[in-house]
Amino acid sequence: MDNQQLVPRPRVGDVFGEMLRDAYAIRTGIGPRPLAGGRVPRPVIEIIEREDGLINGAPADHYLAEPDEWQPHDHRALAQVRGRVLDIGTGGGRIALALQESGVDVTGLDVSPGAIAVCRRRGVRDTVLATVDEHARDGRRYDTFLLLGNNLGLIEGRHRAPGFLAALAEMAAPGARLIAHGTDPYGTTDPVHVGYHELNRSRGRLGGQLRLRLRYREITTDWFDYLVCSVDELRGLVEGTRWRLTDVDDADRPYYLATLTLDG
Amino acid sequence: MDNQQLVPRPRVGDVFGEMLRDAYAIRTGIGPRPLAGGRVPRPVIEIIEREDGLINGAPADHYLAEPDEWQPHDHRALAQVRGRVLDIGTGGGRIALALQESGVDVTGLDVSPGAIAVCRRRGVRDTVLATVDEHARDGRRYDTFLLLGNNLGLIEGRHRAPGFLAALAEMAAPGARLIAHGTDPYGTTDPVHVGYHELNRSRGRLGGQLRLRLRYREITTDWFDYLVCSVDELRGLVEGTRWRLTDVDDADRPYYLATLTLDG
Repeated sequence: MDNQQLVPRPRVGDVFGEMLRDAYAIRTGIGPRPLAGGRVPRPVIEIIEREDGLINGAPADHYLAEPDEWQPHDHRALAQVRGRVLDIGTGGGRIALALQESGVDVTGLDVSPGAIAVCRRRGVRDTVLATVDEHARDGRRYDTFLLLGNNLGLIEGRHRAPGFLAALAEMAAPGARLIAHGTDPYGTTDPVHVGYHELNRSRGRLGGQLRLRLRYREITTDWFDYLVCSVDELRGLVEGTRWRLTDVDDADRPYYLATLTLDG
Repeated sequence: MDNQQLVPRPRVGDVFGEMLRDAYAIRTGIGPRPLAGGRVPRPVIEIIEREDGLINGAPADHYLAEPDEWQPHDHRALAQVRGRVLDIGTGGGRIALALQESGVDVTGLDVSPGAIAVCRRRGVRDTVLATVDEHARDGRRYDTFLLLGNNLGLIEGRHRAPGFLAALAEMAAPGARLIAHGTDPYGTTDPVHVGYHELNRSRGRLGGQLRLRLRYREITTDWFDYLVCSVDELRGLVEGTRWRLTDVDDADRPYYLATLTLDG
């Protein structure tokens, strides 16, 4: 037996897309469902691995949730939407679909081909397969940017934040707003998390700057940074950019909605 | 970014025990519940990693299921129990507890200290923290051995099966029976599984001889073999031992209940 020496190396692939495709099949019966033992439908679980060995699983179905299954802050975020909307990291398209159905002009953006395929099958009309930097070169303008479902994490950390926010500013119509869902990670006393936050700070990273990969069945993403930060840390990241932090709604702590408004 | 070079090495610990402790806290409210963001209860997911990089998650709550939540073959297995019973790999004790409550003299055996702790908290009176080989030296005798919840897998493969079955025979009263729940793995056409079965056979292993580790949060088990085999393969493994395959109930295919009876 090889024991600890054995290190599986899953291949890099479209984890998010394959997971959403299967979660969609389980929820709707459309398309082949994942099976256990070749016959029994198996729940679709998102597996998130952190660089320190922490691993967590969570049912993936919430990516396809209908509005009556959402958390309250999602509804409060959508109530603030105006004008043309870019839904960043649209995933299964739950937010884009709801906005589209209420007559809003919304574009769903994602880097996962499989996620975009699920969006289109569910009826999202305007989708873009690109990063925000790539899409900034397309010349479109938006009045509202959405980073829901904890997607404030896409800002990554101190290194990436200025470029990410600049790409959004490039696409921003005058007075545009960014509504982002974040989570304050510092309410925990769990030594596994507190120790990781300390390790991060000792490396010059923000405490909740997670280095993660997602795994689904035989494939993995590359390692990527995903930021879980406090409102104060977010304020620091926004400083010196063309955005200002103009509102924080922390009624559902540790979750919060942060609104950034384009300056000038 | 380290990308594929980065290899997390979780530490070895009592994965099954910690997972069951948390699943018990979620189900009953007894003991601290695992939290996301330090505040929101998080579902307890068992993560199973195969040596080829395949990874699957499944909710852990079924280990604590009450009889009305069981699969039908569990009830059919318990209907065949007689005399003193050893429940091997008792886990959260769901089987041992049900037998005990119906007046059966049952012992719950497990190698996980945390699993035994959950059993005892739930009220299982006779528990043993040991492998079957260790327990075979205790001089106890049983009329029925149970390997439910897919625990036929503990027979591992050709190398381990004779020793495992010999240890049970040592503890067996005259006419003793072993009732084991297995799964035929060969109904699938999924290339990820078919390819793994072929790899296994090319190494002289049985097709469904899985090399796995379980992970939960920051800990992992060592790699271990867990056998998923057809009834024909089981028949081959039993040949030349003191046991005979005397009944197969495959009404819930791909699952089956195999009954072995002590010879002579």
